[in-house]
Amino acid sequence: MDRPLFIPVLLGSSRAERKSGNVAQFVISQIQAKKIQSELLDVRTMGLPFYEEEHEKLPAAKQWSETMQRADGLIVVSPEYNHSFPGVLKNTLDYLYDEYLHKPIGIVGTSCSQMGGVRMIEQLRLVAIELHMVPIRHAVYFGEMGKKFDENGKLLDEAYIERVDKMLDELLWYARVLKKGREET
Amino acid sequence: MDRPLFIPVLLGSSRAERKSGNVAQFVISQIQAKKIQSELLDVRTMGLPFYEEEHEKLPAAKQWSETMQRADGLIVVSPEYNHSFPGVLKNTLDYLYDEYLHKPIGIVGTSCSQMGGVRMIEQLRLVAIELHMVPIRHAVYFGEMGKKFDENGKLLDEAYIERVDKMLDELLWYARVLKKGREET
Amino acid sequence: MDRPLFIPVLLGSSRAERKSGNVAQFVISQIQAKKIQSELLDVRTMGLPFYEEEHEKLPAAKQWSETMQRADGLIVVSPEYNHSFPGVLKNTLDYLYDEYLHKPIGIVGTSCSQMGGVRMIEQLRLVAIELHMVPIRHAVYFGEMGKKFDENGKLLDEAYIERVDKMLDELLWYARVLKKGREET
Amino acid sequence: MDRPLFIPVLLGSSRAERKSGNVAQFVISQIQAKKIQSELLDVRTMGLPFYEEEHEKLPAAKQWSETMQRADGLIVVSPEYNHSFPGVLKNTLDYLYDEYLHKPIGIVGTSCSQMGGVRMIEQLRLVAIELHMVPIRHAVYFGEMGKKFDENGKLLDEAYIERVDKMLDELLWYARVLKKGREET
Repeated sequence: MDRPLFIPVLLGSSRAERKSGNVAQFVISQIQAKKIQSELLDVRTMGLPFYEEEHEKLPAAKQWSETMQRADGLIVVSPEYNHSFPGVLKNTLDYLYDEYLHKPIGIVGTSCSQMGGVRMIEQLRLVAIELHMVPIRHAVYFGEMGKKFDENGKLLDEAYIERVDKMLDELLWYARVLKKGREET
Repeated sequence: MDRPLFIPVLLGSSRAERKSGNVAQFVISQIQAKKIQSELLDVRTMGLPFYEEEHEKLPAAKQWSETMQRADGLIVVSPEYNHSFPGVLKNTLDYLYDEYLHKPIGIVGTSCSQMGGVRMIEQLRLVAIELHMVPIRHAVYFGEMGKKFDENGKLLDEAYIERVDKMLDELLWYARVLKKGREET
Repeated sequence: MDRPLFIPVLLGSSRAERKSGNVAQFVISQIQAKKIQSELLDVRTMGLPFYEEEHEKLPAAKQWSETMQRADGLIVVSPEYNHSFPGVLKNTLDYLYDEYLHKPIGIVGTSCSQMGGVRMIEQLRLVAIELHMVPIRHAVYFGEMGKKFDENGKLLDEAYIERVDKMLDELLWYARVLKKGREET
Repeated sequence: MDRPLFIPVLLGSSRAERKSGNVAQFVISQIQAKKIQSELLDVRTMGLPFYEEEHEKLPAAKQWSETMQRADGLIVVSPEYNHSFPGVLKNTLDYLYDEYLHKPIGIVGTSCSQMGGVRMIEQLRLVAIELHMVPIRHAVYFGEMGKKFDENGKLLDEAYIERVDKMLDELLWYARVLKKGREET
C-alpha cells in the first residue's frame, strides 16, 4: 500500500515576535484535515548557520536533508522583507539541492501591508525553479496580518479557508502526479 | 495506441532580420529527431493584432488556440529586448489561458551579448506560472548570436546540440508525466 | 527662466474598454495641479506597429521620440496581464533608448484583483533600469478597478489622491535633481 | 571644502573559501584610484545575527548604520546562489532603511558559470528600489570565477578594468548629483 503523502511547511521568519507562525499552524491543520502528513520546519529553531559549502556533517543540515528527501512537496510560509524573502529563509533553502527534484512548492506570503507578500512570492518562485521544483500557480496572500488572527492564534477571516484549500488542491495534484513520475523513471 | 507527443516552438521576434529563426529551426529538428511532433509558430506571421478581450472570432486567435490545445508542452525561442521579452511575444501569449493548463514550457533565449537572453527567461517564467504552465529548470542561452550560425543557418557551435538535448529531456519528462496526470483526472 | 517640468503619462492598455484611462486622466490632473506640464500618450492611438529595428522614418516613432526627449520623467499607467505588462506597452517602450537617459519613472498599476498590478510594476522596473531610467520607490496600486471610478470617470476612493501625490512628490524630486545633473554634465 | 565621496563595498558571501573577496578588493582599488574613499564591509565578519526587529543596541548593527549614513552610495559584490542572493547578504541589507535614502547602488556579480550572477543582480535591484536606493544600469559580471584571478588574487582578465570603470563612472555621476539633491532639500 502506498505511504501517505508528506508535505512539510517551512516557516521563513526568524523573528521572535513573528505572526506568520499562526499562518503556518493554520496551513498544517488544513493539510492534515486532508489525511496528508505534515510538520512544521521552523528556520528559527532549525539551527542552520550562515551557509558554507562543507556542511555535510552538521546535524541540522542532515536533518533538513532527510526531511526534504521524504517530502512529496513543500509549502513555504514567509513574510516579505523589502520586496523579497528574509535572508534566513534563503539561507535555509540553499543548503539542499537534489532533495527538491521534481517536487511541487506552494508559497504563502504574509505582510503588514495589504499586499500579502506578493513580491517575495515572485522572487522565490524563480529560486524554486533553479532548485528543480515546480512552483504552482495558486498562492495565498495574508495581508494586514494584524487583523487576521486573534490573540490565541485563531483565524478571524474565514475566506482564507477556501483560499488555502484551493492552493492545497493544486499542490496535491502535482504532488501525486510527480510522485508517480519519479517512481516510474 | 497513444498519439505521439506534440511540442510546438513559438518564435518570439517580429523583426524581419531576426536571427532567432535559425535557433527555432534547429530546436525543431532536434525535437523531431526524437520522434516527437513539432511545428513553428511565428509571431511575425500569426496575424494577431494587439490584444483585445473580445477576440474569439479572430481566425488567427482560433488557430493559435487549437494548436495549443493539441500541444503537450511549449518551447519559446525569443530574443531579449531591454531585459525582458518582446511585446509581440507577450501579446501572443496573453490571447490564451485554459489551453496552457498543466503543460511544461522550455525557454530558449538569444542575444547579441554573451548573456543569451537570461533576463527575458526569468521574467517569462513568472508569466508562465500564472498561465498554469510548468517552467522547467533547463534553459538554453544563445549569446553572441552573430557567431552561432553560418549564412545558410547552419549551427557553428556544436556544444548547443547537447544543451538543447538536455532541455528537451527535461521537457519531455514533464510532458509525459503531466499528460498522464491530465488524462487521469 | 527655467521652462516648467514636463512629465507625460503613458497609458499601457490597447483595449477599447479599458478602465485604466480613468486613472491616467486622474494622474494627469494631479500633475497639472502642481503646475507641471503633462499630456496623455496612449498606446492605442500612438500608431506604432510591432517593433522593427529600422523604424527611424515612421512618423509615430518620431513623435514618440520627440515627446520623450522633451520629458523630464515618465509615468506609466498600465494594467497587469498575467503577472506582467501588456505586450503593446513593452513594444512602445522598446522603440526608444537614448531619450530615457537619467530620467525618473513612476508606475501606476491597475487590476480587477486586489493586487493593483504589483507584479507588472516589479517587472517593468527592471526594464526601466536597462533603459537608463530611475525607477522610483513609490508606486500606486489601483486594485478592484470596478469600484474605483463612477460611470463618468470620477474617482470614488479619495485615499488615492494622497497616494498619487506621494508618488508625484518623489518623482518630481528626482526630476528636478536629475535635470540639474543632466544640464551640468 | 567638500569632503570626498565615500563608497563602501559590501561583500555578500559568508563562505570561508569564497573567491569573490578578490573582486571586492579589485573594485576598492579602482574606487580609490579615483580619489574616492572606500572600505570593505564583509558580511562574514560584520557580526550580524539573523534579523530581529529590536536590534538597535547591537554594536554590529550600529556600526553598519553609521557606515551607511556616511556613505554616498554602495557597491555590492556578491555571488549568485540558486538564481538569487545569499541569505546572509539579504539579512545584512534588511537591518537598515533610512540610511539608504537617495543613494545609488552598483552591483557586481560572481559565479562559476559564465553568467556572472546576472539573476542575483536583477532580484537585488528590486530590493534596492524598496530601500529607496537608485540601482544604476551598469553592472559587472564576473563569470567563470576560477579563471579570473591568480592564486595571489591578481586579476587575469584585463577587460574587467574598463568594465568596472564604466560602472564606477555611472555610480559616481549619481552619487554626486544625488548628494547635491539631498543637501539642497
